[in-house]
Amino acid sequence: MSKRAAKLGELKTLVTRAFVANATAPENAVSVATALIAAEIDGQTGHGLSRVPAYAAQARSGKVNGRAIPRATQTAKAAIVVDAADGFAYPALDLGIRELARLAPATGIAAVAIHHSHHCGVAGRSVEKLAELGLIGLMFSNTPKAIAPWGGAKALFGTNPIAFAAPRRSAPPLVIDLSLSKVARGKVMVAAKAGQAIPEGWALDAEGRPTSDAKAALDGAMLPMGDAKGAALALMVEILAAGLSASHFGNEASSFFDAEGAPPRIGQLVIAIEPKAFAGPSFIDRIEALLSAIAAQPGARLPGEKRLTGRALAKAGAIQVDAGLLGDIEALAQGAP
Amino acid sequence: MSKRAAKLGELKTLVTRAFVANATAPENAVSVATALIAAEIDGQTGHGLSRVPAYAAQARSGKVNGRAIPRATQTAKAAIVVDAADGFAYPALDLGIRELARLAPATGIAAVAIHHSHHCGVAGRSVEKLAELGLIGLMFSNTPKAIAPWGGAKALFGTNPIAFAAPRRSAPPLVIDLSLSKVARGKVMVAAKAGQAIPEGWALDAEGRPTSDAKAALDGAMLPMGDAKGAALALMVEILAAGLSASHFGNEASSFFDAEGAPPRIGQLVIAIEPKAFAGPSFIDRIEALLSAIAAQPGARLPGEKRLTGRALAKAGAIQVDAGLLGDIEALAQGAP
Repeated sequence: MSKRAAKLGELKTLVTRAFVANATAPENAVSVATALIAAEIDGQTGHGLSRVPAYAAQARSGKVNGRAIPRATQTAKAAIVVDAADGFAYPALDLGIRELARLAPATGIAAVAIHHSHHCGVAGRSVEKLAELGLIGLMFSNTPKAIAPWGGAKALFGTNPIAFAAPRRSAPPLVIDLSLSKVARGKVMVAAKAGQAIPEGWALDAEGRPTSDAKAALDGAMLPMGDAKGAALALMVEILAAGLSASHFGNEASSFFDAEGAPPRIGQLVIAIEPKAFAGPSFIDRIEALLSAIAAQPGARLPGEKRLTGRALAKAGAIQVDAGLLGDIEALAQGAP
Repeated sequence: MSKRAAKLGELKTLVTRAFVANATAPENAVSVATALIAAEIDGQTGHGLSRVPAYAAQARSGKVNGRAIPRATQTAKAAIVVDAADGFAYPALDLGIRELARLAPATGIAAVAIHHSHHCGVAGRSVEKLAELGLIGLMFSNTPKAIAPWGGAKALFGTNPIAFAAPRRSAPPLVIDLSLSKVARGKVMVAAKAGQAIPEGWALDAEGRPTSDAKAALDGAMLPMGDAKGAALALMVEILAAGLSASHFGNEASSFFDAEGAPPRIGQLVIAIEPKAFAGPSFIDRIEALLSAIAAQPGARLPGEKRLTGRALAKAGAIQVDAGLLGDIEALAQGAP
C-alpha cells in the first residue's frame, strides 16, 4: 500500500467535509473527524481513517443519524445519562466527558451511561481525556456479537473493550485499553480476505469447534482472552455498558462495518474518579513510584506507550496515510457516494 | 483427608471463639468467622476455614490488629474512605458496604476505598451483598506480589481479583469473581508441597524463564491470564485498589500466609451502582433476557453457579469440614497457640 503525506489541518478539514457531504451535521462531523485522526496518529489505524467510508455510508443510509444531537440528563447526584440518539458515539462521548469533568471533582466518583450509541473507536482516548484533567477514567463499551459464552458455541458478547487511564506527574497519562477477544476480529477479516489460515486458539467455527479457517471463524465466534475468565469479563461489560444504558446487547446489535439494517444501538459506561477524594494529595507520587518499579525491570513495558511514538511522529504536523484511502475520502468530500 | 460434619451454628461459635482467644475483638471475630464460613459453604475452601490458623497467628503476632475498629469518612458526595487500621478486611468491608448501600441509591454511583487492609477473601461475596440490595457491585483488591509486569521477570503485581455482581429478578445475583493470574497461586503451593511438576504456562522462575518446577515458580512469578492484557489489568487493579486507598502496592506488601513482619496494608476499592439511576425500571428484565440467551446455548455456563451447589448442600444446617483443620480450630478456641 502506497502512502501519502497529509497535513493534519488539511486532513481535518477534508474528513469533516467528507461527513458533511454525507448527511452529517457540521459539529458532529468535526467530532468524528477529530477522533478518527487522533486514532490514526496513535497508530490505531483499525479505529482511524479506515472507518470513514463505512461511517459515511451509514450516515447516508440512516443506520447512523449524522444529525443527531446528543442530550445529557443528570439522573442522580453522580449519575448522567447521555442519549446518543442513534448518532455517532464521539459527540455523545465528548458531551459525557464534559459532564463527568464537571461532576466528579465534587462527588469523588461519577458515571455516564451512553444510550443507543455506535462504535466508540479508541476507548483509551476517551479515558485519557479524563486523566488529562487529573481524574481516573474507566470505560466499558459493548460491540456487536463476537465472543461465545464459555462452554457455548455461538457469538453472543461483543469484543467489549475495557479502558483505563490515570494521570501522571509530568508525562502523558498511563492508558490501558484492551478488547476481550484473544486477538482483534480485524486480523481474522484480513486473513479471510487474503485466503490465509489463522492460528488455532483464535476462534471457533459456527458449530463451536476450534478452527484455523478464517472464513469459518467469521461465521463462528472469537475466543476470549484468558479463556473462561475473559468470557466472564465480556459478560460483565455487556451488563455495565449495555444493561446500564438500556441499549442493545451484542447479540442484538447490527454491524459497525456495513450500512444495512437498523442502528447498532450499543452502549458505553464511562466512570470518572477524583483521586484526591480517596487518596489525598500523595496519589500522583505513589503512581510514579509504581511505574518506576515497573520501568526498573529489564524488558518490562508500560501499556499504551506505542501511541506516544505515533504522536511524536505527528509533531511536525503531517502523517502518512494510505493513498487509496485518502483518495476515497477526497471523493466522499466531493459528494461521491 | 477425612471430613467431619459441623453444624453451622456451632461452627460459627467455634470460629468466633478461636479468634477471640487470639487477640481479636468479639465483633471483629464474628465478622471474620461469618466470612470464612460463607466461603467454606460456597466451596471456596482456599478462602475459607483453612485461613483460620494463619489469621489467628497474625492476630497473635500483631501483623493483623484484631482489635482495630474500622472508621468510615465521607470525603465527597459519593466517596467514602474506610480505614481498616491494619485490622482484618471483613469488618472494614462490612462497614464500607453499609455506607455504599446508604449512599448509592441517592447518588447513582458511589465508591469506598479501604485503606491499610488485609486479605479480602471471596471478593464475589462482598459484591453479592450489594446485588442482594438491588445494586451493581464492582470490586478490586490488590494482594502481595505474584505477577510480573509484561516483559519483566520479577513479581510486582498481586493476583488482584476483580469481582462483579448484578441483581436478578427471582434468583441469587449473578456473580463474577476472578483473579488475574492464569491459575491460583495456591495450586503451585500444593504442587510444591507434593513435589509435583506444574504445567508450562503457569509460572516463571526467579530469572523470568518459563518453568514447570513448582518450587522455582514460588520464587518467581505467576503468569497472568490473557498474557499482556491480563498483566495490564493487574496494573489497573493496583492503581484502583491500592493507589486510590493510599495503601501498599503488591511489591510492598507482606504475605497473607505467615505471621512475620509488618502488616500487608493492601487496599480495596468497592463501587456500587444504582441501576435505576441509569437504565430505569427495565434493567432487571434486560439482564434476565441476556442470561436466558446464554442459558439457551447447549453447554454454556453462567459464572459463579458453583457456589449455589454448595449453598444447597448447606441448607440442612451442616457442612463437611476437614477433620484435621477442625481439630486445629478447636485447639485455637481453647487458647492453644
